[in-house]
Amino acid sequence: LKPDSLLYGRNSVREALRGRRRVLRVWGLERELAGLEDAGASLQIASREELDRLAGVSDHQGLVAEVERYPYADAKALLAPEDALVLALDQIQDPQNFGAICRTAECAGANGVVVPSRGAAPVTGAVSRASAGAVEHLPVARVTNLANYLRDAKQAGAWVFGAEAGARSDYTDPDYEGRTVLVLGSEGKGLRPRVRDSCDALVSLPVKGRIASLNVSAAAAALLYEVVRQRTGPRAG
Amino acid sequence: LKPDSLLYGRNSVREALRGRRRVLRVWGLERELAGLEDAGASLQIASREELDRLAGVSDHQGLVAEVERYPYADAKALLAPEDALVLALDQIQDPQNFGAICRTAECAGANGVVVPSRGAAPVTGAVSRASAGAVEHLPVARVTNLANYLRDAKQAGAWVFGAEAGARSDYTDPDYEGRTVLVLGSEGKGLRPRVRDSCDALVSLPVKGRIASLNVSAAAAALLYEVVRQRTGPRAG
Repeated sequence: LKPDSLLYGRNSVREALRGRRRVLRVWGLERELAGLEDAGASLQIASREELDRLAGVSDHQGLVAEVERYPYADAKALLAPEDALVLALDQIQDPQNFGAICRTAECAGANGVVVPSRGAAPVTGAVSRASAGAVEHLPVARVTNLANYLRDAKQAGAWVFGAEAGARSDYTDPDYEGRTVLVLGSEGKGLRPRVRDSCDALVSLPVKGRIASLNVSAAAAALLYEVVRQRTGPRAG
Repeated sequence: LKPDSLLYGRNSVREALRGRRRVLRVWGLERELAGLEDAGASLQIASREELDRLAGVSDHQGLVAEVERYPYADAKALLAPEDALVLALDQIQDPQNFGAICRTAECAGANGVVVPSRGAAPVTGAVSRASAGAVEHLPVARVTNLANYLRDAKQAGAWVFGAEAGARSDYTDPDYEGRTVLVLGSEGKGLRPRVRDSCDALVSLPVKGRIASLNVSAAAAALLYEVVRQRTGPRAG
């Protein structure tokens, strides 16, 4: 199977079957295929060794699928809702981090994730697996120039916040009620200068320990859930 | 090298050299050893192949070390400060998740992490690597019975909050100012009944998407940073 038409892992395949792209065929251990009969894909029982070979990896949890190529979303359309919450990822190349961030973004109710077409991980089977299938529901869009996209987003009424270690504003300071874009850079490199300059404000998460750097997916979780907290508002009791 | 005396990875080895346990010997690519001359360990230049063999894995980033066994902390002592923040992990077996959570806990200023002696991942080289070396500074303690530890913690004046999907209280509802223990269960299985019953309250993170389950390390990040937010208090604009 080609990398862009391959899925593997229990959640990944199961979410694809109720997601946005067509699943052409599913191979699986007999027990993993149980209950998938009505999902609309051709099913085929396979041995663990056959699945290893099809997936090219061993952590397929007994399910492998051939799917249509990933249906990337339109980046501008993600900003249409008045309370749109979009995550922009600048050059995050690690499929594990990319997938983990997409999973958290989907859980936090984000409208989508935007990545540059170059220098970022594409949505492969490994990303879908790391996202627990979240990318089968969460729209992911690619843009040729992330800095330009952020400028367009501001013109469309969004506030654009870049996360940067050491930034003077705490990430809890801004008001995240309206259209919001959160921008995260790659670990180690951070935001590229033009991307950084396209933000309305830079915010940081407090870091109190000795190692002094959060993993980017942990930073994404803290940021996204701060937005959720602000938007949920004070609760009774 | 034995699993409990092996470290690998740039951050892991470098943090160990300024951390709590003795580093007996470091093997590394020549460029990775530069600057470590005064760190107090015996250094030896090694090829990539030798490092692969010593570490037993290939993601060592050019640095492998032999260290003393992990110096587990005293679980009760972690609760001594009046504003102690302790994370208790119930049966988290995946070294990646365990390490990632320790990294976030260290960054959030937690006083330590407590795990049961059985059924939880020990602090191996893989955990230290996944924590970016955070476990070399952050105290990790093992207890024979986690439920008993939580009961003792309550007697010592701590409030114990268990995270459980679907719990009625939002995780932002409690007051996290005093001694606080946050309890997280394994993905899929959640908290064991006796651990759950030992909590003062159960809290949940809102989940808005279709996949309905946060990764445990993302949940840990959101929870820990909510504690940080409450403790930092309102900031001047």
